[in-house]
Amino acid sequence: MELWYTEEWTDNFRFSLKVKQHLYHEESPYQKIDVIDTYEFGRMLILDGLVMFSDRDEAHYHEMLTHVPMFTHPNPKNILVIGGGDGGTMRELLRHPEVEHIDLVEIDRLVVEKSIEYFPKIASEFDNPKLSVHYKDGIEFVKNPPMKYDIVLIDSTDPIGPAVGLYEKPFYEDVYDCLTDEGLICAQAESSLLTPERVKGMREKLLTIYNRVLIYISFIPSYPGGQWAFIIGSKKYHSPDDFREDDARSMKSEFNYYTPDIHRASFMLPAKFKRFLEEE
Amino acid sequence: MELWYTEEWTDNFRFSLKVKQHLYHEESPYQKIDVIDTYEFGRMLILDGLVMFSDRDEAHYHEMLTHVPMFTHPNPKNILVIGGGDGGTMRELLRHPEVEHIDLVEIDRLVVEKSIEYFPKIASEFDNPKLSVHYKDGIEFVKNPPMKYDIVLIDSTDPIGPAVGLYEKPFYEDVYDCLTDEGLICAQAESSLLTPERVKGMREKLLTIYNRVLIYISFIPSYPGGQWAFIIGSKKYHSPDDFREDDARSMKSEFNYYTPDIHRASFMLPAKFKRFLEEE
Repeated sequence: MELWYTEEWTDNFRFSLKVKQHLYHEESPYQKIDVIDTYEFGRMLILDGLVMFSDRDEAHYHEMLTHVPMFTHPNPKNILVIGGGDGGTMRELLRHPEVEHIDLVEIDRLVVEKSIEYFPKIASEFDNPKLSVHYKDGIEFVKNPPMKYDIVLIDSTDPIGPAVGLYEKPFYEDVYDCLTDEGLICAQAESSLLTPERVKGMREKLLTIYNRVLIYISFIPSYPGGQWAFIIGSKKYHSPDDFREDDARSMKSEFNYYTPDIHRASFMLPAKFKRFLEEE
Repeated sequence: MELWYTEEWTDNFRFSLKVKQHLYHEESPYQKIDVIDTYEFGRMLILDGLVMFSDRDEAHYHEMLTHVPMFTHPNPKNILVIGGGDGGTMRELLRHPEVEHIDLVEIDRLVVEKSIEYFPKIASEFDNPKLSVHYKDGIEFVKNPPMKYDIVLIDSTDPIGPAVGLYEKPFYEDVYDCLTDEGLICAQAESSLLTPERVKGMREKLLTIYNRVLIYISFIPSYPGGQWAFIIGSKKYHSPDDFREDDARSMKSEFNYYTPDIHRASFMLPAKFKRFLEEE
């Protein structure tokens, strides 16, 4: 018997991977959770039938969501992560010695438990004393935050179901108020190829709130279309012109995807995509 | 009835597109030729069961194969294209006013004829007086070239069947002899994700012949893995540090993918891929 995982990237475009084993399936109060082991991408977490990450290319996502904003801010000590229950973003954050405290707000406790069980190299830092995990709705959390943050990372699922509010202006305004005067927000921003209108919509909302908004991209082959956008809204610090390149170069542990050159390059958008984002 | 085109990117990884219509099928003396019309990527040319290009993302390939080397050379007048029977590379070359002559060496006349018939926006320049088309084997052509070239572009199929020789050292040596003292070769160099060993092999062969060898990448969603490599072997001019950026910025017609910023960014390789290429 052959088992294949097939994701309908659109009604007319499918991505399929041969499966070694279907390791886990459960329905939490929030979503369907599956773990599969594939020949080509290793183990993968699937939420509501969509790839969240794979062993093979999770670094393309987690490193880029984390290190680009982290090296943009001169001294990021207190970080808030909305979503990110798999722990990959946290693992990357904790490579930065200046981090003092991380609040992680994940709505679904089962995602954390199963990530620890099935993805120990990703969910590797849940015992770290710098971390507080809050099993809450991020939309509620940012209305009454316990402190001000240097960086807020939105490591969320797609704008479907419970995550819809994470793409709305009231949420972005609450996040703005959670940030210090030098703070910045960075969010995953959907597919540059297949949902550019989502990227554009996020950009337009953030532009009404933040002094400067920047889009950057990463190659993430297991995500719809294969190229993924990220968005930064900044009160003060303006990557890509200015980031802590020397600190990035001297970081001891090896990156899989990020480099200081990739940092700068990731803000350079393909011509047509750039025009689409900027046209009225 | 639903028709789907499925390409096995590896034994364990499939790419599938819903097909509106199978427009053409023929077996030439060299290969199987198919033209399909898909909902997601428009019309596509398929040779021996592999995507050569689609309407939607052909510019990601043709612009990057062409404009990166063209703006690297200070005054490219005479160009040799090996392969490229679809005409897309030629269309991009002819946007450069300094081009005086192009020799296009395509082994399969049927590819040219069917590209003119099914892809008129790509095969748009076959009547251009600056062009000479030679229906010959590129491997033989470069052994006795009619002139010296400023740039040689290798716009070939994968290293399977008749194209194997286009990835061998004797071919690269013959190309070297076809070039002026300031000339450069640029070739498509296969998938950075799925066949990095091919990219590395080409790099190692070219390094034994050329003063400097550089790899760059483009996002090409219809190609295996979604990210594609290109390679430049240069006798004198060394992109990305130095290219005709002002000329690129002032080019009148709009690009779909290429920009001067993308030019520079495309040489910035993901950390793990870069290490793989450079390790002994």
